[in-house]
Amino acid sequence: MTAIEQFHTAPGTLDLGWGHPHPDALPVTEWTAAVSVALERWGPAALAYGSTAGPAPLIEWIGGPADEVFVTAGASHALELIASVFGRGGPVLVDTPTYHYALRTLADHGLELIEAPADDPDRLASVIRERRPALFYVVPTFSNPTGASLPGPHRVALIETARRGGLTIIEDDTYRELHYGVTPSPSLYSLDASDVVIRINSLAKTVAPGLRLGWITASPDRIRLLTQRGYIDSGGGVNHTTAMAMAAFGDYAAHLDRLRLRYAAQRDALVSALHHHLPAATFDVPDGGWFLWIRLPGADDLAAPAAAHGVGFLPGNTFFLDRAPGRPIRLAFSRYSPDDLTEAARRLASAYRAL
Amino acid sequence: MTAIEQFHTAPGTLDLGWGHPHPDALPVTEWTAAVSVALERWGPAALAYGSTAGPAPLIEWIGGPADEVFVTAGASHALELIASVFGRGGPVLVDTPTYHYALRTLADHGLELIEAPADDPDRLASVIRERRPALFYVVPTFSNPTGASLPGPHRVALIETARRGGLTIIEDDTYRELHYGVTPSPSLYSLDASDVVIRINSLAKTVAPGLRLGWITASPDRIRLLTQRGYIDSGGGVNHTTAMAMAAFGDYAAHLDRLRLRYAAQRDALVSALHHHLPAATFDVPDGGWFLWIRLPGADDLAAPAAAHGVGFLPGNTFFLDRAPGRPIRLAFSRYSPDDLTEAARRLASAYRAL
Repeated sequence: MTAIEQFHTAPGTLDLGWGHPHPDALPVTEWTAAVSVALERWGPAALAYGSTAGPAPLIEWIGGPADEVFVTAGASHALELIASVFGRGGPVLVDTPTYHYALRTLADHGLELIEAPADDPDRLASVIRERRPALFYVVPTFSNPTGASLPGPHRVALIETARRGGLTIIEDDTYRELHYGVTPSPSLYSLDASDVVIRINSLAKTVAPGLRLGWITASPDRIRLLTQRGYIDSGGGVNHTTAMAMAAFGDYAAHLDRLRLRYAAQRDALVSALHHHLPAATFDVPDGGWFLWIRLPGADDLAAPAAAHGVGFLPGNTFFLDRAPGRPIRLAFSRYSPDDLTEAARRLASAYRAL
Repeated sequence: MTAIEQFHTAPGTLDLGWGHPHPDALPVTEWTAAVSVALERWGPAALAYGSTAGPAPLIEWIGGPADEVFVTAGASHALELIASVFGRGGPVLVDTPTYHYALRTLADHGLELIEAPADDPDRLASVIRERRPALFYVVPTFSNPTGASLPGPHRVALIETARRGGLTIIEDDTYRELHYGVTPSPSLYSLDASDVVIRINSLAKTVAPGLRLGWITASPDRIRLLTQRGYIDSGGGVNHTTAMAMAAFGDYAAHLDRLRLRYAAQRDALVSALHHHLPAATFDVPDGGWFLWIRLPGADDLAAPAAAHGVGFLPGNTFFLDRAPGRPIRLAFSRYSPDDLTEAARRLASAYRAL
């Protein structure tokens, strides 16, 4: 049995376990137009084997020094590629709770994973001394799963600690553009003067995940190493035609504004409904991203009653290396309308009362 | 400096070193239409996170059992993924001369490469006994670089030898659809009844390389292992929107017919011109694919004079593990018009006389 989409859930269930976009947020007409413009403007060059690090029009669209950009087939592909090329010479630190598929992707490369906090330079320095890690994976801005961001001063300290310890930071900056009021702190990459940071950027949340389009920003030396991977030198730009279409996307700024209004409204609806229906839940309201990270006593036993009440979530231990109980739960407010999110909170409260 | 295309050469040079399509063979208007139809027909589902092994409409378009298909981001990505998931437990045999970037891709995974012939079961069996390889990479149909195909009886023997030796065959079937008169032998995959073969298929030569779209056919168990790779489970279908558009591509059969006529005419022009201008060259005329494999005494010293005469080729030792001299040269007839190919042969003959 095959499907079209990755998303699936039991009929009638409001499944807040999936960090997927609302279907109405996907720019169907805009993308059709972008492809038409690109193929009209560039003709066969948009369909040929593409320049290995990505085509000039998209690299210009991205901005910054051209030799610091490598266009990828999405953020997940970026992490796989970075692990393939730079994942040697020691274990990988991970700033848990963190993106659970990143843990699996890194582990696929036979890399040992060690938990370490991005916001505690002293402990980080001591882990570096003891374990000699090569990489540190972190989502410092509107984190998955917590929605929290690393404060500016901690960013500078983190870079300095990494530099002294010979550690390369993988900054997963997937959620940066989805801010709802407060502009996020500068990226680690933009604060780094010593080639410590490799940054992963994505168009999955801001345009569409089905495009499988993102990019890496890193030093020219690191970009060169990525382009020298055999399969990339073989096929050329890893998502060329899509990259060319993205370079012809219409009014991206206006599109982002609409997107921010939409997701802010969805966040607000879920926050209000939780405050109203489920006062036992405590959480910070994130300034961006797609997730609420909810502390709820007894939530370890909530999955089955929640499913029975037609609502889904991800248990917090998904985002740690161990599977210890007592963790918060993650609710994604990205995929449903305010009304559905309100209903989901109501169902979650009913399930919680039934515990 | 960034470019749009991967292809580049000195100004005025006819560079037959590149196995790239003729720009006029790229279906610019047809692809624009396919994207429009797909986005009209499937709406946001064509832009969402896609089903992990590929979306149902493209899997149906491909045909065969749905659980034996995994849609990839091109043939090169397919080989990288296969090496990541199945490249353990022994060295890799390669049927040299063979696709040079495949050699690099496999070597990137730290795999030891050993040359072995696909058409000599006895020698193959003895290499298997001595070296216990896990994989065998072969392009049995319109091979890159030779254009030759493994005869039908040899295919059956190869599969049986692999089965007895516990060897998995990676069948790179990239050129199958580009036949110019004679229909190719059945794929190894279609002849295999014992889960020995993983087949790589590509739309780079038949539609457009910039799409980065291909697929793997393998047993359901193997397909499942591919979908369980962390980064693929993370991002869903690896080229979803493009896959959905391909499923809405117009008259593919008519498109293929036009393509075959085009490349047959290009092949014939280069063959005739070589016979006329460079009688010292001996070669078989391939029934398909993109390449001529030319024996030419003294060709080891031909690169510099050829460049001076404005023509390029790839030296044959590119396609072997060693770099020993005395090999044929590869000429791609894919990227240039019949007139340009005639001129290229004339230049090559002039360069050869200047040796």
